[in-house]
Amino acid sequence: MSQRYRVAVLGATGLVGRTMIEVLAEQQFPVEELIPLASERSAGQKITFQDKEYATQVPSAEVFGKVDIALFSAGGSVSKEWAPIAAREGAVVIDNSSAFRMEPNVPLVVPEVNAETIFSTDGKPASIIANPNCSTIQMVVVLKPLHDKYTIKRVVVSTYQSVTGKGKKGLEALEEEIAGKAQEKFEHVHPIAYNVVPHIDVFLGNDYTKEEMKMVNETQKILNQPDLKVSPTTVRVPVYGGHAESVNIEFEHDFEVDDVRKLLAQSPGILVNDHPGENVYPMPIECYGKDDVFVGRIRRDYWHPKTINMWIVADNLRKGAATNAVQIANCLIGKLTPKALV
Amino acid sequence: MSQRYRVAVLGATGLVGRTMIEVLAEQQFPVEELIPLASERSAGQKITFQDKEYATQVPSAEVFGKVDIALFSAGGSVSKEWAPIAAREGAVVIDNSSAFRMEPNVPLVVPEVNAETIFSTDGKPASIIANPNCSTIQMVVVLKPLHDKYTIKRVVVSTYQSVTGKGKKGLEALEEEIAGKAQEKFEHVHPIAYNVVPHIDVFLGNDYTKEEMKMVNETQKILNQPDLKVSPTTVRVPVYGGHAESVNIEFEHDFEVDDVRKLLAQSPGILVNDHPGENVYPMPIECYGKDDVFVGRIRRDYWHPKTINMWIVADNLRKGAATNAVQIANCLIGKLTPKALV
Repeated sequence: MSQRYRVAVLGATGLVGRTMIEVLAEQQFPVEELIPLASERSAGQKITFQDKEYATQVPSAEVFGKVDIALFSAGGSVSKEWAPIAAREGAVVIDNSSAFRMEPNVPLVVPEVNAETIFSTDGKPASIIANPNCSTIQMVVVLKPLHDKYTIKRVVVSTYQSVTGKGKKGLEALEEEIAGKAQEKFEHVHPIAYNVVPHIDVFLGNDYTKEEMKMVNETQKILNQPDLKVSPTTVRVPVYGGHAESVNIEFEHDFEVDDVRKLLAQSPGILVNDHPGENVYPMPIECYGKDDVFVGRIRRDYWHPKTINMWIVADNLRKGAATNAVQIANCLIGKLTPKALV
Repeated sequence: MSQRYRVAVLGATGLVGRTMIEVLAEQQFPVEELIPLASERSAGQKITFQDKEYATQVPSAEVFGKVDIALFSAGGSVSKEWAPIAAREGAVVIDNSSAFRMEPNVPLVVPEVNAETIFSTDGKPASIIANPNCSTIQMVVVLKPLHDKYTIKRVVVSTYQSVTGKGKKGLEALEEEIAGKAQEKFEHVHPIAYNVVPHIDVFLGNDYTKEEMKMVNETQKILNQPDLKVSPTTVRVPVYGGHAESVNIEFEHDFEVDDVRKLLAQSPGILVNDHPGENVYPMPIECYGKDDVFVGRIRRDYWHPKTINMWIVADNLRKGAATNAVQIANCLIGKLTPKALV
């Protein structure tokens, strides 16, 4: 029996929404009907999917009434408003915003790591499933197999994050600045062209940014290690291909670097790209448009026992957002009965 | 008695050499005569200094015979060839290359940290004084007062380094790539526009780069702590204003964050720029052309005891190279008798 689903994408005209639709097509997700949703401002805009044109609509309870799976990527406040309505109408919501991520009863899912948390003991999927923050996703894909084998004690991470993390506005702002156009107060707080800005999302009372605390809290939740030590510094760089992360990991148990390389190469969702002598290591310019998490610069921290350095890169719009959301949706296939068949 | 010196600048037409000449003028260094030196290719090029024009010459033993202080910034092989000759001819060489930095009898100097090592016990300056690597200098200026008060056990550092670290060619390569000009195999190994490249200088047998090992070895030497743990990842970013560093520091003794901020604000060569609530933190775009080391994002590492995170930025052509070299020269004033007076 081949089940096909009615799939809504809320935020269909944004960078992540468009990428979600691309990935649904690429992965031949069994879409019975695509329902692109967007704000009043973008309503009516045409979206092409598998050679069919769909007009973007505004979200409503009626629309969600016929939806099986709803991918949300329209910001936290839109999610807070519409996810409960969509869920009440019987859609499974996969939400890319941070609105529900830390709710105890909402699974926060990276399929390679904790796909099993999508379902309750009776096999039913949660009505709202949260897609983690981009910088968290690419890191936990790598931390998971390492934690299973060596037990992670501590992570120190500094990020190099793409302007696409701020959506189309972030990308346009970089392009306009590079072109020397008049500088407005814009998406990145400070100019980003030819600059690096150690500030993503708002500052919290503890002098860390919300982005940094997402890396702490979400990593602990996804790995189910509430005491895991993660010390982050998140930084915006004038790049659009993906996020990079310089990661220092201390283990409970010692390791051989070659074993770590082999373990990662065998782990789902990871491509090891580590031939420094041939100038091969992951870079955002090469990870752009790809679904994997790339790891390189794997080397022992000779100055601290049982500790390793590595460099992790992924396309934040793909594995960091759209691809991960579609992978979650993939987990539902065969386990969620389409409304049309009920 | 006002002593004035004959000062040679070898590499006078390069980015660092030009900046050295600018800084000599700004700091009103007592220059009796400027002697700009460069390769055959650049010889004859005119350099303006304090309203006088000087023609660039090629280096020779004869020239160094009348020089009191020689600032070298023309690469390691040029330094290896000419520094011993200049020293033999009685000039004090301040060398910006890595050629002599780790020689046991060559002082490696950041004046705020270890100016006293310039002189032997009889008060004579060393004949060759090494200027440290740019990414090392800005870090040790900050580590020194912290180490004196709290004793540093371990440093994990990730850098965000300007293309000007590769000189004019690095800067031009970024500009040409941004302008969409044909990509040649160029200074940064890989494209740098819209990219970040975790590779500066060559890879060594231990899978760290030479740049990374400079941060380890030079920091240990300058702080006179041969066992200090420094775990570096050095990364090139499409920026020209300066180098930034995300630094995680573990101390022997505990601290109050406010005391750290005060201590750094009172320490020589440092400007604390740390008001995250007002979006104030150091950025390369603002440190460009400045001589200080800027520190911000100072915050406790809540996940590891006695550990702090901070963000350090400086103009790599200034404090990271030219300014530091001229500051070393400043230490010689009054302690080195000009040849003209001998």
